[in-house]
Amino acid sequence: MTVLRPPTASPTTAATIATIADEVGVSVATVSKVLNGRSDVSPETRARVEESLERNRYRRRSRRQPASAGQIDLVFHEFDSEWATEILRGVEAVTATAGIGLAVSQLGGAHSPSQAWLDAALARRPLGVLFVLCHLTEPQQQQLQRQLIPFVVVDTDSATSASVPTVGSNNWNGGLLATRHLLELGHRRVAIISGPQDVLCSRARAAGFRFAHDEAGLTVDPTLVRYGSFYVDAGYHHGMELLSRPDRPTAIFAGSDLQAMGVLRAARQLDLRVPEDLSVIGYDNLPFAAWIGPALTTVNQPLRDMAGTAAQMLLDLARGTELSTSRIDLVTELVVRESTAPPNPHP
Amino acid sequence: MTVLRPPTASPTTAATIATIADEVGVSVATVSKVLNGRSDVSPETRARVEESLERNRYRRRSRRQPASAGQIDLVFHEFDSEWATEILRGVEAVTATAGIGLAVSQLGGAHSPSQAWLDAALARRPLGVLFVLCHLTEPQQQQLQRQLIPFVVVDTDSATSASVPTVGSNNWNGGLLATRHLLELGHRRVAIISGPQDVLCSRARAAGFRFAHDEAGLTVDPTLVRYGSFYVDAGYHHGMELLSRPDRPTAIFAGSDLQAMGVLRAARQLDLRVPEDLSVIGYDNLPFAAWIGPALTTVNQPLRDMAGTAAQMLLDLARGTELSTSRIDLVTELVVRESTAPPNPHP
Repeated sequence: MTVLRPPTASPTTAATIATIADEVGVSVATVSKVLNGRSDVSPETRARVEESLERNRYRRRSRRQPASAGQIDLVFHEFDSEWATEILRGVEAVTATAGIGLAVSQLGGAHSPSQAWLDAALARRPLGVLFVLCHLTEPQQQQLQRQLIPFVVVDTDSATSASVPTVGSNNWNGGLLATRHLLELGHRRVAIISGPQDVLCSRARAAGFRFAHDEAGLTVDPTLVRYGSFYVDAGYHHGMELLSRPDRPTAIFAGSDLQAMGVLRAARQLDLRVPEDLSVIGYDNLPFAAWIGPALTTVNQPLRDMAGTAAQMLLDLARGTELSTSRIDLVTELVVRESTAPPNPHP
Repeated sequence: MTVLRPPTASPTTAATIATIADEVGVSVATVSKVLNGRSDVSPETRARVEESLERNRYRRRSRRQPASAGQIDLVFHEFDSEWATEILRGVEAVTATAGIGLAVSQLGGAHSPSQAWLDAALARRPLGVLFVLCHLTEPQQQQLQRQLIPFVVVDTDSATSASVPTVGSNNWNGGLLATRHLLELGHRRVAIISGPQDVLCSRARAAGFRFAHDEAGLTVDPTLVRYGSFYVDAGYHHGMELLSRPDRPTAIFAGSDLQAMGVLRAARQLDLRVPEDLSVIGYDNLPFAAWIGPALTTVNQPLRDMAGTAAQMLLDLARGTELSTSRIDLVTELVVRESTAPPNPHP
């Protein structure tokens, strides 16, 4: 007769709060405080507990059931412009349908949350966290993982680690479509003002811009390739510089609809008519792009769909469903309106 | 010797869950479910319990302490345009500083929440609820009051009951300032497109418009007073109608910046230059008003401040602080930009 012995518990799964407390030499309550993101633990003790939790690959045994149907946390890098509103709309449509609450916050422009933010979020015990244009440091990721709190990132920057579920859009393709449209209209001096150069999506769009030129057998004048913030000011300043040159471009492809507004303002100030003297393309397709005069030709970035897809992935993860894919880029497309036309033969 | 008897408990304060359960003939658990907004109670039973709770003026003895520092619920009538983003920014600035979470939802255009929404909100046990352009029915107010959950309303409509803490802005004054500016520029045929006629703020602005005319000894042509939705379409349609008339107005005061965008579109389509042939004033002062061309003269409605003030009132109420005043209207002011000028002497 063979005695069936229970399989040896592997250290990966066996660590309990008591094990950790023993190892670090603190009370179980202290370990619990660290796990729950409480701030009344000294930084040194917290660091030692964190280190032990990670080494023992501690995982909460089962999720404590939330009092309500639960909620997710939606975290913005910043509430800026209707970009954020579109994301909020997309997420809320999914959470409202699922009967799930939605807690919203923003990092005031920071790209990773502070420990204070993370502690507060953990204390809310969300079903999951959705990050918009921001991300977690490795140790922060581990903190969420230990609590079995899934997270998903909405990012236009495709550089996010493959291990983090991310929803973005195809920026290279957006750059290609916009530039092709201008070249097909007959423009030969086309400028691009992309987003910040340290953000991959800006460089991806510029790469699409170059590719469209290569494809057409045209050379890119490097002085017509600019980078700036996504806001109105950057469009205005680059626009003024580009359009004041004697060899000014006949078309400008901007990095956002807000930047394009800045370019339009510069054109007005220099008495250049759009689209007669200058073609302008935006990026994002925010609602106002359709209303302004001239209505803006722009690259549609499906923000609501991106947000909705990410929210759905997060709810799937919270339910324990495996994701079929962890990295989704939605398709961008060109929306032609009134701000683009063939170049003026008699400028 | 006098025997001190405990004072007779008044029905106002003495009702317990057990009293209510006895009176209605249901279990304590059922009363508790109704109080906590749980949906697994039949509508009939719920109604009977509600009725008894209200008759006995039941109040929760003490607020159950939330697991975290707590959160407030922010409820929009709808996420429409940057109007909602501005409100969100104002509220979040206050909650983030206070270390309090912010749950966001929207009613899809309804003016009062559904019972399902209210149940979900109650289950979240918020410190308070902030309603934006929406309000509670009387029975819904009672539900929140029984749970000692305070609420505040952000509304441009000053008709809200004095018993409900409300933050708004002075619409009559906004209408007066805009109209005075146009009359002082020399305009004598001025049209107003206000918001929906069933909303008090729209009529308050129209009253300010009339007052400015009276003040200047001028008569208002009633065909130049219009009402419509706050969106671009209404501005475009009324704008097309008004500007196609032989006796067209030389200035239009719109009910929102979005409406003003519609008026500008109509003017472009009719080849009327702004401000040379037509002066246009918006309302709200959303960020884009400064960026479009011509930059929009508009009435600044201090949305962020209104939202921040309301959030602060809510946190005060949640802490048990008495409000010094329950109805605050913030001041509106005129922001003059490029879309207004004296009327064209040779139209």
